[in-house]
Amino acid sequence: MTKNQTTPSPERLGIAIVGLGGAVATTAVAGTELIRMGDQDTTGLPLAEFDHLDLVDYEQIYFRGWDLFEDDLYAAAANHRVLRADQLESIKPALTGMRPWKAISNRNYCEGVVCEEDSKGTHRELIQTIVDQIHEFAGEIGGRVVVINLASTEHAIDISDDIYQSVTAFERALDENNTGISPAMLYAYACIQEGIPYGNFTPSRAADIPALRKLAAEKNVPVAGKDGKTGQTYIKTVLAPALRARALKVRGWFSTNILGNRDGEALRKPGSLQNKIGTKGDVLANCLGYPVEDHVVKINYYRPRGDDKEAWDNIDVDGFLGQPMQIKVNFLCKDSILAAPLAIEIARCLDLAGRTGRGGVVEELGVFFKAPMTSDGREPNHNFTEQHIALMQWLEDDRQAAPATAGPQASQSVA
Amino acid sequence: MTKNQTTPSPERLGIAIVGLGGAVATTAVAGTELIRMGDQDTTGLPLAEFDHLDLVDYEQIYFRGWDLFEDDLYAAAANHRVLRADQLESIKPALTGMRPWKAISNRNYCEGVVCEEDSKGTHRELIQTIVDQIHEFAGEIGGRVVVINLASTEHAIDISDDIYQSVTAFERALDENNTGISPAMLYAYACIQEGIPYGNFTPSRAADIPALRKLAAEKNVPVAGKDGKTGQTYIKTVLAPALRARALKVRGWFSTNILGNRDGEALRKPGSLQNKIGTKGDVLANCLGYPVEDHVVKINYYRPRGDDKEAWDNIDVDGFLGQPMQIKVNFLCKDSILAAPLAIEIARCLDLAGRTGRGGVVEELGVFFKAPMTSDGREPNHNFTEQHIALMQWLEDDRQAAPATAGPQASQSVA
Amino acid sequence: MTKNQTTPSPERLGIAIVGLGGAVATTAVAGTELIRMGDQDTTGLPLAEFDHLDLVDYEQIYFRGWDLFEDDLYAAAANHRVLRADQLESIKPALTGMRPWKAISNRNYCEGVVCEEDSKGTHRELIQTIVDQIHEFAGEIGGRVVVINLASTEHAIDISDDIYQSVTAFERALDENNTGISPAMLYAYACIQEGIPYGNFTPSRAADIPALRKLAAEKNVPVAGKDGKTGQTYIKTVLAPALRARALKVRGWFSTNILGNRDGEALRKPGSLQNKIGTKGDVLANCLGYPVEDHVVKINYYRPRGDDKEAWDNIDVDGFLGQPMQIKVNFLCKDSILAAPLAIEIARCLDLAGRTGRGGVVEELGVFFKAPMTSDGREPNHNFTEQHIALMQWLEDDRQAAPATAGPQASQSVA
Amino acid sequence: MTKNQTTPSPERLGIAIVGLGGAVATTAVAGTELIRMGDQDTTGLPLAEFDHLDLVDYEQIYFRGWDLFEDDLYAAAANHRVLRADQLESIKPALTGMRPWKAISNRNYCEGVVCEEDSKGTHRELIQTIVDQIHEFAGEIGGRVVVINLASTEHAIDISDDIYQSVTAFERALDENNTGISPAMLYAYACIQEGIPYGNFTPSRAADIPALRKLAAEKNVPVAGKDGKTGQTYIKTVLAPALRARALKVRGWFSTNILGNRDGEALRKPGSLQNKIGTKGDVLANCLGYPVEDHVVKINYYRPRGDDKEAWDNIDVDGFLGQPMQIKVNFLCKDSILAAPLAIEIARCLDLAGRTGRGGVVEELGVFFKAPMTSDGREPNHNFTEQHIALMQWLEDDRQAAPATAGPQASQSVA
Repeated sequence: MTKNQTTPSPERLGIAIVGLGGAVATTAVAGTELIRMGDQDTTGLPLAEFDHLDLVDYEQIYFRGWDLFEDDLYAAAANHRVLRADQLESIKPALTGMRPWKAISNRNYCEGVVCEEDSKGTHRELIQTIVDQIHEFAGEIGGRVVVINLASTEHAIDISDDIYQSVTAFERALDENNTGISPAMLYAYACIQEGIPYGNFTPSRAADIPALRKLAAEKNVPVAGKDGKTGQTYIKTVLAPALRARALKVRGWFSTNILGNRDGEALRKPGSLQNKIGTKGDVLANCLGYPVEDHVVKINYYRPRGDDKEAWDNIDVDGFLGQPMQIKVNFLCKDSILAAPLAIEIARCLDLAGRTGRGGVVEELGVFFKAPMTSDGREPNHNFTEQHIALMQWLEDDRQAAPATAGPQASQSVA
Repeated sequence: MTKNQTTPSPERLGIAIVGLGGAVATTAVAGTELIRMGDQDTTGLPLAEFDHLDLVDYEQIYFRGWDLFEDDLYAAAANHRVLRADQLESIKPALTGMRPWKAISNRNYCEGVVCEEDSKGTHRELIQTIVDQIHEFAGEIGGRVVVINLASTEHAIDISDDIYQSVTAFERALDENNTGISPAMLYAYACIQEGIPYGNFTPSRAADIPALRKLAAEKNVPVAGKDGKTGQTYIKTVLAPALRARALKVRGWFSTNILGNRDGEALRKPGSLQNKIGTKGDVLANCLGYPVEDHVVKINYYRPRGDDKEAWDNIDVDGFLGQPMQIKVNFLCKDSILAAPLAIEIARCLDLAGRTGRGGVVEELGVFFKAPMTSDGREPNHNFTEQHIALMQWLEDDRQAAPATAGPQASQSVA
Repeated sequence: MTKNQTTPSPERLGIAIVGLGGAVATTAVAGTELIRMGDQDTTGLPLAEFDHLDLVDYEQIYFRGWDLFEDDLYAAAANHRVLRADQLESIKPALTGMRPWKAISNRNYCEGVVCEEDSKGTHRELIQTIVDQIHEFAGEIGGRVVVINLASTEHAIDISDDIYQSVTAFERALDENNTGISPAMLYAYACIQEGIPYGNFTPSRAADIPALRKLAAEKNVPVAGKDGKTGQTYIKTVLAPALRARALKVRGWFSTNILGNRDGEALRKPGSLQNKIGTKGDVLANCLGYPVEDHVVKINYYRPRGDDKEAWDNIDVDGFLGQPMQIKVNFLCKDSILAAPLAIEIARCLDLAGRTGRGGVVEELGVFFKAPMTSDGREPNHNFTEQHIALMQWLEDDRQAAPATAGPQASQSVA
Repeated sequence: MTKNQTTPSPERLGIAIVGLGGAVATTAVAGTELIRMGDQDTTGLPLAEFDHLDLVDYEQIYFRGWDLFEDDLYAAAANHRVLRADQLESIKPALTGMRPWKAISNRNYCEGVVCEEDSKGTHRELIQTIVDQIHEFAGEIGGRVVVINLASTEHAIDISDDIYQSVTAFERALDENNTGISPAMLYAYACIQEGIPYGNFTPSRAADIPALRKLAAEKNVPVAGKDGKTGQTYIKTVLAPALRARALKVRGWFSTNILGNRDGEALRKPGSLQNKIGTKGDVLANCLGYPVEDHVVKINYYRPRGDDKEAWDNIDVDGFLGQPMQIKVNFLCKDSILAAPLAIEIARCLDLAGRTGRGGVVEELGVFFKAPMTSDGREPNHNFTEQHIALMQWLEDDRQAAPATAGPQASQSVA
């Protein structure tokens, strides 16, 4: 704590991203640069209008991270075609200079993306490397760091395995280089162990396994996840509660998606699609208060769209006198454009939580996730508006509680 | 109060409807009969799951009312084609026996519907007739009465006229049979004067003119309005706040409607369309926190749909980095199926307000209206979810406050 | 030929349907009855306006057929919920009296529907039963008969097997009760062998295997198929040629369907879905003149719709200067309402072909099918308008060629 | 004829555009330049695959023209935002050098666009200026010229006025500077009088008035028009005939458009909207064979889209047994991207007609127009596919008839 008070620039926040070369990550990096240069306003950043809050300024955010691909961020961003040509050019100098650290590679967990060969080293060695990299980054910027997982979805695991249930079992599995431990878990463990706030924007299993949830609580390290709520599920959790408020009975909800980015390609493999659909499944019943037997969710890889994503929902409802009506929603969105600002906000909130001593699962961040983590594993609330109110309430309360100057900031040990 | 305790059936509620032969009214009447017969569940009735509340049971609701057309309700309902054939047949005996009182006719205010000749009599005489009819109805059912306006939209008026500004001016205008006083105002005045709760489900000017708002406050009579929030505006006030919560900037919102019922036909006349569009106009800016210059609302008469209504919305939003996205919503709804249960719930709530001594504009009913009235004429909140929460809060609070048995019920003077 | 001239009612046509209890079949039967009773016009019957042609009158059409289910047609039609209640009631007497013959059951080919046990008897015995039933029907109505396959899609087969390649091999396989011969083939063979026109409205393999195509040509028996072009493919083969005419380059075409009838349920089994998708696959390239790599077709079982079917297509096209545009088509259709009149018209045309000595594959009927058969197995033309023009031309030519009175009608041996 | 054989470069075609600074014109100019530079393929150009035909090569096309605005074409194109940034830059040199001639300005006919002051001079003087400019252009390129009208829609006129009925009356009105003669008519007259092929891509009245139609026939000058069939009407005339082919009865067709370019803004004025809707009105009945009472067409100015245009159509059809179905088409198109290549093709075809001695109204070009002109004013055929076939037939026939080398080309007197 005293350390932080003496760091030259206490306001800076470093976001270390797993999957730095991906479409969402490069969009987040590029957007932050554009804001810093004054070329871009804060449209799309949900907490921008709360600038009086004790959240770090967007201009004070810096990025580094890991990726399987070694491209510099300019090449990566150009490849994803999310940014407009003029936007890309104006930040070319900044992006060209950024190159990811080599990410942990494990072919058992890769889906759809190329993992040429597995990373060398024991679990413990890989964790130490992660920790070293984070500290190096913190030193460079002279500030705090949070880690956000934006890597491609990993292959599904059997979550009931004993090694995931307790800290002791998990750490023993680490020591034994158990193959049940995925790269995402290694990053999450490294962070929690080291006091670094960790957010999981992907459907992969990471800090949400019981062992790591417990460890985060014990260590009082803020964690949040999982699977960013960007497009169709966002709309779904907005509409479903409103249908309930009018007592319109949902008889069926058919959701289909077309998307053509690397994420979509990864989803072609059955294992990771299972993870993705799984995080969408329970949402509807939760918002409505009753199960909908005909809730169908389809995700389709369709290249002409690139990073643009399109969702088409058909909702069959019964109204008064049992008479049927239909609502159809067609959302022509841009996956990374929706996701990147959420990833940034999650990082800012986790940082705030860290500075104010709020550890464990930060449930108030549920509005950002398709499958919000809860501290005890119970079913989360998916109602978008209620989630939004909960977040606003936490931020308001925190503002009143917090000292005027950024005081008790770091629960993390930045060298 | 003692009066009520001695009435033979204190639980009964009479709903007297202006426009009893219309599609919404006949649907409400038919639906209530079907529920009473046990042939229909309460789908579509927003407050049905709050059956522990001190709201009158649906089975205890009875209808009468006024219309320009003299058809019995079976003929009227058959003509509107809202009910399924089997539903219509099963309540034929009940509906055939119901025939509306002659409504006040005034060609100056008619739009799209036929007003063959004006009602005879002074304003005061017409008011007395209304009052007598309500008392007769109350006597018949041995219960309380509320009045709901479901008549066709009246011709727009110049709301700045002096006669609408104060009770004194309005009553003087009444005495002078001023042509600026519309039929809707006569019904509203009759109710308020007599202590009968009054709800306005149409866009017509009635209890929302300052004079009548003030009178309702003075007399402590619950009033609510106006213009039922059923289809497109309901969806709009659900989605817009959610877009704001994600900082998605609305650059344009194009709303078009096609509908083919009597209501749609009436809207073909420019005067009443102006009323209708007017009540839709401010909603969006209110929900978003900023004005949207390209907010276009079109309502089109299109006969193939009959009472079915279809809304198509296109929403242009800018996301992070100023990148454009689109949301399109296509709502294939049934106007009367959405409206009728709201009219019933408004009546139940106004009755509850009356029984618990809650007079004046009942702002908590705003969730039901496109243009919610406020006690002092200030701009209302249009955010659907916040409106819903406000209503739930009032009902919950009231439940805790209310005695176990229906005590201080009637603020109205039923003989 | 002389035979026909002496039959008491030469104008009557019997349609014997495989799958008589299904939604399409019962709709066809019911619709024909309603037309005969004068309760229904000919909306939806494509050839109705060509009433001057030598096609049999709708009023002269009678039905019988086979089904796995034993329900009478009233029960079956009521169960499918395609007809309106009032339509169903008015033809109750006619439908109640109709009960299907027992269809051939073979669990190897069933998909999604219940085949409790296999039919007893050799292939040859089953064929003889079919022939006897057709002759019995022809005798009853004193007219000609055609057979239309409307049964649930059968399990896919390996079409390259030798037994399907020649008449000799196929007949040997029949003699040996080879399990590679499906029920649909038995019906088709029975018809062709006996000179009865045969149309296949399903994706199942039947008269389109080389052996049966050749046999039909040899025996000069008209056959047509396969897989009725009703909803999404109909629209696709209308739009795609029009896009080509404007040189709009199709970069992707995403088609999704939701349907909830027995047909949809059957499609849940992968085997029959493969048949279905297969008949949709080549259509687009054929209409455009180039392959579309991102042509995705999804069919989803979704119960709330029942027999109603909904298709949503998204088409990505590039225009001048390579600029992208999108077309989205949402077709809310009724599967059986679209299919039934086509089945009737196919039967009328096959009957006309039979009477005018036009045997083998009647390619001019291609407009009615998703996967039009060709006489030599070459790729068919899928362009809807060109198909329509070809049909009109054939009918016009035929009209000019045909004698004023129905002369050389039957190539079939009705006793 | 001998003249043409001696011109140095007989293959060149000059297209002189009225409205050269508009979105469609600048797109046509830019696209042609990009093709000439080899930077662009011929996607979107309907006749590109008929390159063996005797149509002028795209690379041989040059542009000049008139506009009310004096911006050079680079500034104009940049303002319209139709071209991508990279496309615009690569042709900056070519466009910067092009500046329109001053167009005829007449405030009586302006709608929505600014006409600061009327052009000076008599009708005859203005015509002479036009002729001089065309000849100058022909001289510059050493080739033939056709004129295409792409100017903003003019105010509607009373077409029954005597001055429009005969050549004599029209020329007398010219001599008298009659105010009933619009700028569009002056351009059309100048062309026809001078033997220059003329095409009208706008809804304005021009060569379609009887006087000019007759003059074109007398002089054997090819003319065509009017109002380019680009978006919604294109789709409508594709779908409607296909619905007819299936005997699906259209009960209603609701078409709405949103567009935000200069054309859309011009349409806000009632006079020009009347012209626009008028050219859309009869199309549907023509394609279906019966009138549709509920055919509604709405055009809305909606700025967020800029030159992008969006059409939403809802079609209500009745199928077999009178059962209702719906088709909805959502076309996200780009107005100028669709229009520009059609304008180019019309010019190429008119040029071909001129060279092959085919004068008067070239009805075979009907596929390109919403309101195809006919030689005698009778109702045109609107069926898209039949129009397309007619065009193809003419081009094929012409190819067979034409000599191998471009022989009898110019019916126009290029100096």
